[in-house]
Amino acid sequence: MTTVGILGGGQLARMLALAGAPLGLRFLVMDTQPDACAGQFAPLLVGDYRDEDALAEFASKVDVATFDFENVPAESAQWLSERVPVFPNPRALGLIQDRLAEKTLFRDAGVPVPEFADVTSREGLDAAIAAIGTPCILKTRRLGYDGKGQFRIRPDKAGATADDAWDALGAQAQTVGLILEAFVPFERELSVVAVRGRDGEFRTWPLTENWHVDGVLSASLAPARVDDALSTIAFDHARRLAERLDYVGVFALELFCHGGELLANELAPRVHNSGHWSIEGAETSQFENHMRAVLGRPLGATTMRGHACMLNWIGELPDADAVLQVAGGHWHDYGKLPRPGRKVGHATVRRDSAMELAQVLQRVGESLGRQDQVAPVVDALERSHS
Amino acid sequence: MTTVGILGGGQLARMLALAGAPLGLRFLVMDTQPDACAGQFAPLLVGDYRDEDALAEFASKVDVATFDFENVPAESAQWLSERVPVFPNPRALGLIQDRLAEKTLFRDAGVPVPEFADVTSREGLDAAIAAIGTPCILKTRRLGYDGKGQFRIRPDKAGATADDAWDALGAQAQTVGLILEAFVPFERELSVVAVRGRDGEFRTWPLTENWHVDGVLSASLAPARVDDALSTIAFDHARRLAERLDYVGVFALELFCHGGELLANELAPRVHNSGHWSIEGAETSQFENHMRAVLGRPLGATTMRGHACMLNWIGELPDADAVLQVAGGHWHDYGKLPRPGRKVGHATVRRDSAMELAQVLQRVGESLGRQDQVAPVVDALERSHS
Ligand SMILES: Nc1ncnc2c1ncn2[C@@H]1O[C@H](COP(=O)(O)OP(=O)(O)OP(=O)(O)O)[C@@H](O)[C@H]1O
Ligand SMILES: Nc1ncnc2c1ncn2[C@@H]1O[C@H](COP(=O)(O)OP(=O)(O)OP(=O)(O)O)[C@@H](O)[C@H]1O
Repeated sequence: MTTVGILGGGQLARMLALAGAPLGLRFLVMDTQPDACAGQFAPLLVGDYRDEDALAEFASKVDVATFDFENVPAESAQWLSERVPVFPNPRALGLIQDRLAEKTLFRDAGVPVPEFADVTSREGLDAAIAAIGTPCILKTRRLGYDGKGQFRIRPDKAGATADDAWDALGAQAQTVGLILEAFVPFERELSVVAVRGRDGEFRTWPLTENWHVDGVLSASLAPARVDDALSTIAFDHARRLAERLDYVGVFALELFCHGGELLANELAPRVHNSGHWSIEGAETSQFENHMRAVLGRPLGATTMRGHACMLNWIGELPDADAVLQVAGGHWHDYGKLPRPGRKVGHATVRRDSAMELAQVLQRVGESLGRQDQVAPVVDALERSHS
Repeated sequence: MTTVGILGGGQLARMLALAGAPLGLRFLVMDTQPDACAGQFAPLLVGDYRDEDALAEFASKVDVATFDFENVPAESAQWLSERVPVFPNPRALGLIQDRLAEKTLFRDAGVPVPEFADVTSREGLDAAIAAIGTPCILKTRRLGYDGKGQFRIRPDKAGATADDAWDALGAQAQTVGLILEAFVPFERELSVVAVRGRDGEFRTWPLTENWHVDGVLSASLAPARVDDALSTIAFDHARRLAERLDYVGVFALELFCHGGELLANELAPRVHNSGHWSIEGAETSQFENHMRAVLGRPLGATTMRGHACMLNWIGELPDADAVLQVAGGHWHDYGKLPRPGRKVGHATVRRDSAMELAQVLQRVGESLGRQDQVAPVVDALERSHS
């Protein structure tokens, strides 16, 4: 009997546990919150990731550990890895937690990135803006998620917005650090969801296209409308990074596509929101393959089944029946209380053809009064067809 | 928040909970055994189904109740249904628990059955054998499962085996009752797995072909190699029975196919082993659709994805990697301790074409040294192709 420990008990841990159950696994989830939603389907240990007693209890009860949450302190991950196998490895996790180290790694690995510069002072910000140009984005180096900890500096009034950006984030220059990045006027956002086994075997799901609203993922479409050459480049980037990091498990590489070129935004060292469609849309889901990888079992086929679109539910759930009543409509309620900005669930619609998917999405959008959310996906499907 | 109560905490309850989680459901499972395997992923109430205090506690904590186990006493189901909605309804459950009432219902509904007769005494057995002829099977009317409580009477030495049959089962004539059935020299066994919603909506998965070893399901193949006309008849039988019983939820109708005709064996009033392939092989699994039906939500599409074969693991699990390493290979470990005759897990292999499925099954059978288990399925797939 193998017990898998998961640091972080949100929807990712919950879906990992549900996918791991058929493999005969038991789980222990650790979270700071007693109502963490993974606790509805797996034993939950409530504790702070920095608390050595809690971590020691966790370590004593699990055979292997992984993450639902990428901002677990790198030292905690390291401490844990001296007691039980931890995948992905804490070095990779620590590196990725810092946008500056991450982008430097990308560049060193030959993966193109937007221009970027470390920012440590108000003067440094001006110098960075002068070097990189506008528009650009000031971001915290650490602990950002869902577009939080970011400030966009517009070209028209660079001076004034630099002041605003510094007002908003300057205080964090000495704590989590700051990075300035060129703003990429991308045509679209793509992600590679990939998995690497303990033995180095590497597989990717088909490339996914993503749409964000206010910095939060709103919809994903797989397969993305791209030619094979672009997919090959994207997969190659992902593989190169995974090998450099000696990464084990599932991760997502977020990419901007601009003028037919790919620029890497970030690597999420865990199962990823843009891979949720794989539960119904692929032979093996990202959640199952993460478990297989972490346990050193053979990886499952990542082949697509038709075309799939994932719609994120933020803040509160709409009416499930609008999705359940369409053929190929699947519902995922994370069992969380509604709260503004919170990811509370998602839906996946899967159909054999792109045109059918467009039609069904249109219907779902109309029944829910969420035409805006489905519109870019419907549009993408229709354009790829004509 | 809706809590679904499940009476019985075996692998069926476990798979129901795993499938119901994404719908935002909570579960409470009741079982007589503290180590019931569904308890690994859902809260477990240990108690006897006849214990009113335990049942009252169960009723007070759930919004709706269903079954993993068809032999819950009909009175307990009735008692419960006076407190919370119970699906399928206790009348249907009670009727199906008695092979004599069940076969009588089938006959009344115009669903052909093997000849049968009620047996209440040793002389009655002789009379029944004389009327029905040999070979035939003496079965307990109630509480049989996995071929237990059955005795086959062979044609060569009918008198002697009638004595043996009576020795084996006669004592139960006054407790659970006995029924004699004509033995059907079937060419194959089929099952209809079907679901009926609270609003009467009725759907079936494609017909499944099943192979038993020692009275226990060994392998299932979907879709079965049958023509549409036969499928239509089978689906029609299932629909007619569901309507007569005002059935809500998933059930399986087990059929013998003999000389191109269908004879009904029994109706299992729950998700069924011969529908396990639907987890990976259908757009919506039997487990998810059972939940949708019980909750009165729209039913999901039951369309097939390619071709699927389920292999049952009895007694102990073979090496999972032999299955995990093939494309389309999926593993289901129920988290049970090994024990002779116990259903401890299953595998499903799904492929887009019948020929690919035959090839992959052959490989799996060889890696596991279980050529015998896969042979009839491979054979069926190859014959249907040529
Ligand atoms: N350099 C950039 N150029 C253009 N848009 C950007 C840039 N950086 C971020 N964005 C936009 O903001 C979104 C979120 O940014 P990013 O992924 O850096 O934030 P995060 O807080 O780490 O979010 P996540 O939840 O995806 O990890 C991106 O998906 C993109 O839409
Ligand atoms: N009348 C019959 N003629 C031929 N074979 C039969 C007959 N009755 C039962 N069998 C064989 O025995 C198997 C099990 O029988 P049956 O389904 O009646 O038993 P059970 O104990 O209720 O099993 P289950 O676990 O399927 O509910 C059948 O699938 C079939 O292979």
